[in-house]
Amino acid sequence: MIPGPVPLSDSAAEALAAPVQAHYGPAWVSVHDETLGLLRQVFAAEGDILLLVGSGSAGLDAAIGSLLAPGETALVGVNGYFGKRLAAIARAHGADVVEVTAEWGEPLATEAFESAVRQHPEAKAIVATHVETSTGVVNPVHDIARLANAQGVPVMADAISSLGGVEFAMEAWGVDLCVSASQKCLGGPAGLAPVAVGPRAWAAIEKRLAAAPGPGWYLNLQTWREFAQSQKEWHPFPVTMPTHAVLSLRAGLRALLAEGLPNRLRRYRTLAARLRAGLQELGFQPLAADACAAPVVTAARSLPGIPSGRVVEFLERAHGLKIAGGLGPLQHTVFRVGHMAPSVGERDIDDVLAALEDFKHQAAIGKEAV
Amino acid sequence: MIPGPVPLSDSAAEALAAPVQAHYGPAWVSVHDETLGLLRQVFAAEGDILLLVGSGSAGLDAAIGSLLAPGETALVGVNGYFGKRLAAIARAHGADVVEVTAEWGEPLATEAFESAVRQHPEAKAIVATHVETSTGVVNPVHDIARLANAQGVPVMADAISSLGGVEFAMEAWGVDLCVSASQKCLGGPAGLAPVAVGPRAWAAIEKRLAAAPGPGWYLNLQTWREFAQSQKEWHPFPVTMPTHAVLSLRAGLRALLAEGLPNRLRRYRTLAARLRAGLQELGFQPLAADACAAPVVTAARSLPGIPSGRVVEFLERAHGLKIAGGLGPLQHTVFRVGHMAPSVGERDIDDVLAALEDFKHQAAIGKEAV
Repeated sequence: MIPGPVPLSDSAAEALAAPVQAHYGPAWVSVHDETLGLLRQVFAAEGDILLLVGSGSAGLDAAIGSLLAPGETALVGVNGYFGKRLAAIARAHGADVVEVTAEWGEPLATEAFESAVRQHPEAKAIVATHVETSTGVVNPVHDIARLANAQGVPVMADAISSLGGVEFAMEAWGVDLCVSASQKCLGGPAGLAPVAVGPRAWAAIEKRLAAAPGPGWYLNLQTWREFAQSQKEWHPFPVTMPTHAVLSLRAGLRALLAEGLPNRLRRYRTLAARLRAGLQELGFQPLAADACAAPVVTAARSLPGIPSGRVVEFLERAHGLKIAGGLGPLQHTVFRVGHMAPSVGERDIDDVLAALEDFKHQAAIGKEAV
Repeated sequence: MIPGPVPLSDSAAEALAAPVQAHYGPAWVSVHDETLGLLRQVFAAEGDILLLVGSGSAGLDAAIGSLLAPGETALVGVNGYFGKRLAAIARAHGADVVEVTAEWGEPLATEAFESAVRQHPEAKAIVATHVETSTGVVNPVHDIARLANAQGVPVMADAISSLGGVEFAMEAWGVDLCVSASQKCLGGPAGLAPVAVGPRAWAAIEKRLAAAPGPGWYLNLQTWREFAQSQKEWHPFPVTMPTHAVLSLRAGLRALLAEGLPNRLRRYRTLAARLRAGLQELGFQPLAADACAAPVVTAARSLPGIPSGRVVEFLERAHGLKIAGGLGPLQHTVFRVGHMAPSVGERDIDDVLAALEDFKHQAAIGKEAV
């Protein structure tokens, strides 16, 4: 019950354990292409999908570095740890970052982006997390994309912990570039970063790459596109693929689409509501308001005066339940429950709630109080 | 019998199939640190080891981009497909690349680097592959490093297909920065790039990072060092680790060191000699001369007038043996046999030779001739 990596389903675990195979040739290309096709359905996008080898942050770095030349301005939404990471990545590429902030636990405001765009007409990209994993908040990517489209500014979404677990439609929403990761709602193991690139993003990337050196070779989306096109039949990616991870991700995606994406999203919403209601009843206040609460990860405040690390520790020690602590400024006040694994059900939610109730009881009788 | 990825040993395969676990906290840090310690022994280096999430090329890109600012000169050895890749990576970071070339199948010449250094006293790095996987040639990294040290130029080695299979001693040789990959001689699955960084490399990297923006966040060795230091006890890397891959790599490394690195290297040398002798006897001329032949991968010329792809295809179809074709200009003339898997023995070498003898026989009676 941590916010990723998620436990693998049986089919994804079996695929992970399959014998190593060559990562090229027709048989492998067919696996790879099927995986991209499944991802395309989850992104709800018709354009290019690139399956980068690396963590989700590798995909973010590739997308941001391919889009922005040093010295160019980026408007980056920051309302949590992973928004800050987006800003750090953009700065590390030499971009001039304008942070569009909201309180941690609040969603980004489209109006704040409107105002930032007015003040920075030179901006070359708008970048935002979809689900901010550190606070369990869903940002209004749909609205931010609409604004970006109206202004003619490419918009990139970090959908690492949302894709496959939260409603998202890249093309219908007008998102130009979107990055996810294998080990969260897609149900695969860590180590792959699917990146979806629309035509406006490609146009911006071509312009940026022609204008200035960088962003290197590996995390340069153009490198991956070149191999996808020129080595289509034999080796449509520039590097050695971790075939075991791709096969396992494919199993996760097949299961997701067999359940039906709308069914899965509905299931998560129901589970999240159950968790939030239970938390409130116990006095653990969820950080995010109902309207912006992520259905795949919930951050909640610890009981007054009790560091959240104690909650995390107690659940693991006394109940064998692994949840996560807070990040950044929320480190000691907030704990996080991930419910983005395909296998999570009501029973798991209830187990967490029962364990928290036990913690509360122990705290009340002084056993766990600080 | 392809030049990587290699089949996993039982222990490495079992580790790959272990349940997903959290990639942080004391238990995981202990696995991670043990893995770094094992790698340190194989690199024969006392300094920092960073375990990047990505293919070997991710490590190369991080090393080159962290060392060289746009506009700086790099002397890059090019005597095969992967030397060309090093040059492409350096160019993609905006470096001014001076290619120090040798024929494909010949080793790089230290004299050529001497002359390049004289002509380019402004050079900020010397970069070379150790084993050029496309030709099966070992480059004289030891001598190139000695020259670089004498000139005060940082030297970086691509040891992706050599580390753990070919004699290498980072510190004794004076190599400043060295990159490998999990899925070749180290006996793990694809998806991890170990990078060893010595003190002169760190000094050059700090200078480069202070001087110019880039090389981004993810493939920036400084990012990995910061987490290694500041999150030493909990999360000593900046991203989600593919724990299954690390556990499997650890199993591969444990097996390597249990066998004893000198024993393993000796075993590979013997196997390579057996393969080369057999190839010559059958009329398949090895590309590399004895003095520079890699003990872990052998490239050989096909029979006159027969495209090498036919050899590769025949071995798979008729004998269930997977070897690899040539790369780049050698695509149609050369085939490659990888013998870098820990499990490869005399029997495997003899199987390949028997299959090649069968091919030769079929070709002689006209069944496989073009």
